[in-house]
Amino acid sequence: MKLEGLSIIGSSRAKAAGKPTPAINPATGAALGPDYFWATAADVEAAAHLAAKAFSEIKQWPGKRRAGLLRRIAELIEANAPVIQERANLETALPLARLQGETARTCGQLRLFATLIEEGWWLDARIDHADPNRKPLPKPDVRSMLAPLGPVVVFSSSNFPLAFSVAGGDTASALAAGCPVIVKPHQGHPGTSELVGLCVQQAVRDCGAPEGAFSLLYGAGREVGVALVKHPLVKAVGFTGSRAGGRALMDAAAARPEPIPVYAEMGSINPVFLLPGALQQNAEALATGLHGSVTLGVGQFCTNPGLVFVEKSEAATRFLTRLEALMAATPPGTMLTADLCASYRAGVEEFAAASGVRRAAGAGADPGAGNAQADAALFVTDAETFLGNHQLMDEVFGPSTLVVECSSRDQMLAAAARLEGQLTATIHATPGELTANRDLVALLEGKVGRLLCNGFPTGVEVCHAMNHGGPYPATSDGRSTSVGTRAITRFTRAVCFQNFPDAALPDELKEANPLSLWRLVDGKLGRH
Amino acid sequence: MKLEGLSIIGSSRAKAAGKPTPAINPATGAALGPDYFWATAADVEAAAHLAAKAFSEIKQWPGKRRAGLLRRIAELIEANAPVIQERANLETALPLARLQGETARTCGQLRLFATLIEEGWWLDARIDHADPNRKPLPKPDVRSMLAPLGPVVVFSSSNFPLAFSVAGGDTASALAAGCPVIVKPHQGHPGTSELVGLCVQQAVRDCGAPEGAFSLLYGAGREVGVALVKHPLVKAVGFTGSRAGGRALMDAAAARPEPIPVYAEMGSINPVFLLPGALQQNAEALATGLHGSVTLGVGQFCTNPGLVFVEKSEAATRFLTRLEALMAATPPGTMLTADLCASYRAGVEEFAAASGVRRAAGAGADPGAGNAQADAALFVTDAETFLGNHQLMDEVFGPSTLVVECSSRDQMLAAAARLEGQLTATIHATPGELTANRDLVALLEGKVGRLLCNGFPTGVEVCHAMNHGGPYPATSDGRSTSVGTRAITRFTRAVCFQNFPDAALPDELKEANPLSLWRLVDGKLGRH
Repeated sequence: MKLEGLSIIGSSRAKAAGKPTPAINPATGAALGPDYFWATAADVEAAAHLAAKAFSEIKQWPGKRRAGLLRRIAELIEANAPVIQERANLETALPLARLQGETARTCGQLRLFATLIEEGWWLDARIDHADPNRKPLPKPDVRSMLAPLGPVVVFSSSNFPLAFSVAGGDTASALAAGCPVIVKPHQGHPGTSELVGLCVQQAVRDCGAPEGAFSLLYGAGREVGVALVKHPLVKAVGFTGSRAGGRALMDAAAARPEPIPVYAEMGSINPVFLLPGALQQNAEALATGLHGSVTLGVGQFCTNPGLVFVEKSEAATRFLTRLEALMAATPPGTMLTADLCASYRAGVEEFAAASGVRRAAGAGADPGAGNAQADAALFVTDAETFLGNHQLMDEVFGPSTLVVECSSRDQMLAAAARLEGQLTATIHATPGELTANRDLVALLEGKVGRLLCNGFPTGVEVCHAMNHGGPYPATSDGRSTSVGTRAITRFTRAVCFQNFPDAALPDELKEANPLSLWRLVDGKLGRH
Repeated sequence: MKLEGLSIIGSSRAKAAGKPTPAINPATGAALGPDYFWATAADVEAAAHLAAKAFSEIKQWPGKRRAGLLRRIAELIEANAPVIQERANLETALPLARLQGETARTCGQLRLFATLIEEGWWLDARIDHADPNRKPLPKPDVRSMLAPLGPVVVFSSSNFPLAFSVAGGDTASALAAGCPVIVKPHQGHPGTSELVGLCVQQAVRDCGAPEGAFSLLYGAGREVGVALVKHPLVKAVGFTGSRAGGRALMDAAAARPEPIPVYAEMGSINPVFLLPGALQQNAEALATGLHGSVTLGVGQFCTNPGLVFVEKSEAATRFLTRLEALMAATPPGTMLTADLCASYRAGVEEFAAASGVRRAAGAGADPGAGNAQADAALFVTDAETFLGNHQLMDEVFGPSTLVVECSSRDQMLAAAARLEGQLTATIHATPGELTANRDLVALLEGKVGRLLCNGFPTGVEVCHAMNHGGPYPATSDGRSTSVGTRAITRFTRAVCFQNFPDAALPDELKEANPLSLWRLVDGKLGRH
């Protein structure tokens, strides 16, 4: 696979046009060849039309055939893993071991969706039989199942160059549903995106899929990205990134003549509540665990715990003392891009300047040759200050966290009540405390997508039960998840057939159940 | 039950304020007592706060307890059915027999949702067990299920004063999900709304539910309605009505600091395709059936077939001749309100004035004392004219339809391709034709929520498999249905628990499955 720096439009490559933009090694600031060229309006048009054409074909594919495409993508990524990981390491400064893990996660995710669509229970197939003798009116035969929405645009993330990027969860779930995908890669890792994009292009070819099943268009979110979101042939959007970026896409999609759904995962501060009993038992271990979670991957996770509540106590002091020592001793790390690092530094300085907030660690590392070096930052404040300053709820994307000392359980509850929507919240508690704090648990349930007990929120398991979503502003649409098999339903809607002859029904809804699917027949679930 | 003309705010009634507005009998134009008073900004505030307070309680109720509330509402509506139907008849001119059927539908719908939440499989409970020995990282225990969103505002329809109104499908599904409801009743039937609202208020009391579980606020959609949609404590919206009204609410909801979902069912022209073989066999019967469907309830159904495609043939001429005779012989009917009738008349005159369109029936009835009398209208055009005039795709709400004569199958396909999103499409075909027209079926599948074969779209069965939705502009959100049990998921999102001790989990997710729910455990569906 040779890097060309050009967008992928179905089975072709775009022409070089406009100003070339290089990839940058954030560790050194050096440009990495080749130059990348942004897609033009004509490229957007071509990709959208190819996708619409491909849709009319792949939506008719049986699940098993689409599964073959997902499995082939995984095989090709694995076959090219060393070159992909090497490039990703240069573009993102993420260590090879992490990128190897992320490759496994990406391929595992593709295969999980493949298994899902081979099994087919996710289709929510339903049959209500006719009753011609019902009075006063005969009952019709009504059958329905989920069907794909149409072409999907996927904006890849900065922080997961594989698992939330070109062949990541959004792409896997959209293709699994039967939707063609047009990826707008993140500018932080264009070469990685090209390599993975070429794997997907090859898989499309190998599986005899229509070429428009996949395209990849380089460019700025505000230009190429918005043009894609506004394109009438595009029917849904997946996005992982900043709140400002996500909201801009939400607004653009809502203002279309035909509004379309946007699934934007926009990050979160992931509050952690350390209840007194748990703190009493495990102050030092909690400090170690939290430090590990805050600084993992230079803090560049949307589930990074950016806010910690404790009740003042001797144990809380021990916890804080240990955490300060750990944070202060953390060596600086290279962030994904110089831009992200600049945002992180600005966020840290805003917290440091806030009245009533103490900076306990993180004076600011030397930015390094790539202007991307960041050190871990720890801030401490009290609940009154926190409740009085909304800015302290802003996400600082990077290895920073804010500890809020509360003087009572009620104050902790009041602070919890003030939180915006979050991807996660975490409670550390003894079994008795969990029972005694049912009100806190119930309150947090209403604010988050995932509630953890005695753990840390980084590390999002890819499984059926996972929910990586959460009320706005954590995501654009708190009814959705971008991780786990429920993600597939984002790109679907129900289609219903009334009084259709059996032969004209899709196999999933035929009376004899030839695919042996789980179905809801006359209100009863079964493999019938 | 005594009509007072006042909004219902939890267990109280609003004070009379502002300009009184009477209900009108559309058959006579006469005012029906009492006067109705519009809710104030303070009423909106009070209802929203009561709803939020109620939410924190009823979201914790087991499904069986919420089912009791739904069943009690049904009982009270049945107990008061004669007075409700008598008032509805005066306010809407719908015949008593129809209102009796609608009462049965409304109560049946409440009980269907009650059964659904008693059974609980709809919760999509999922469990992925931990694997502490997994390498490289231990696997956590992850469990999730659907949870209610929060207070829901329901805008009731004009055309179903019971089944899509105060205790209709939106209210039933929102309460079933665990969401409090604030209804903005339609101004066409305020007394019916008050009577049903009092039944719901009584049921809330009888079942020991928090008073804020239900409120009902009179007023204009643009004022009280928009204030409710913009209220920060409101988390979702259900609406049945016009495209302009629905889109205004969509835009208001999307522009909120925290955007919320709007489920607006905005109507449709429900195209019918009469394929040559079917027409050859059944020309007269098809004319009779179509006439019945177009004129049912004075054409006031969102599934009213407003567009019919035929290929020119001797059979098509027979069909059209018969349909013209039937439409011309249809006695005028009283529409729901004078406003709707004025819109209908304007729509009919626009079609009549369109170039290349022939008015085959419906010269305009005497509007009557209530200015609400309408006669059935039939228009005929050819495919070229249809394809050249986008206005001919506008919905004319009332007993009107447009027959489009095509000169070929390709022309019919081209016209189908041009259609906007629809609630339904219908194909009349012989078995052989259905096979030969797979491309038409596939095309329509992509445009509609429900596809009918050899039937008529009016009459929406309330059942598990029903989908009463469809791509925009049929609805605001083509992923949703407002009829059938899938409607409940509109008001939910998944909530996930990671590594929670069994005792702290909701019963639905406890290891022993104490509710004996259907669950997805480690990827396998079962009652385990």
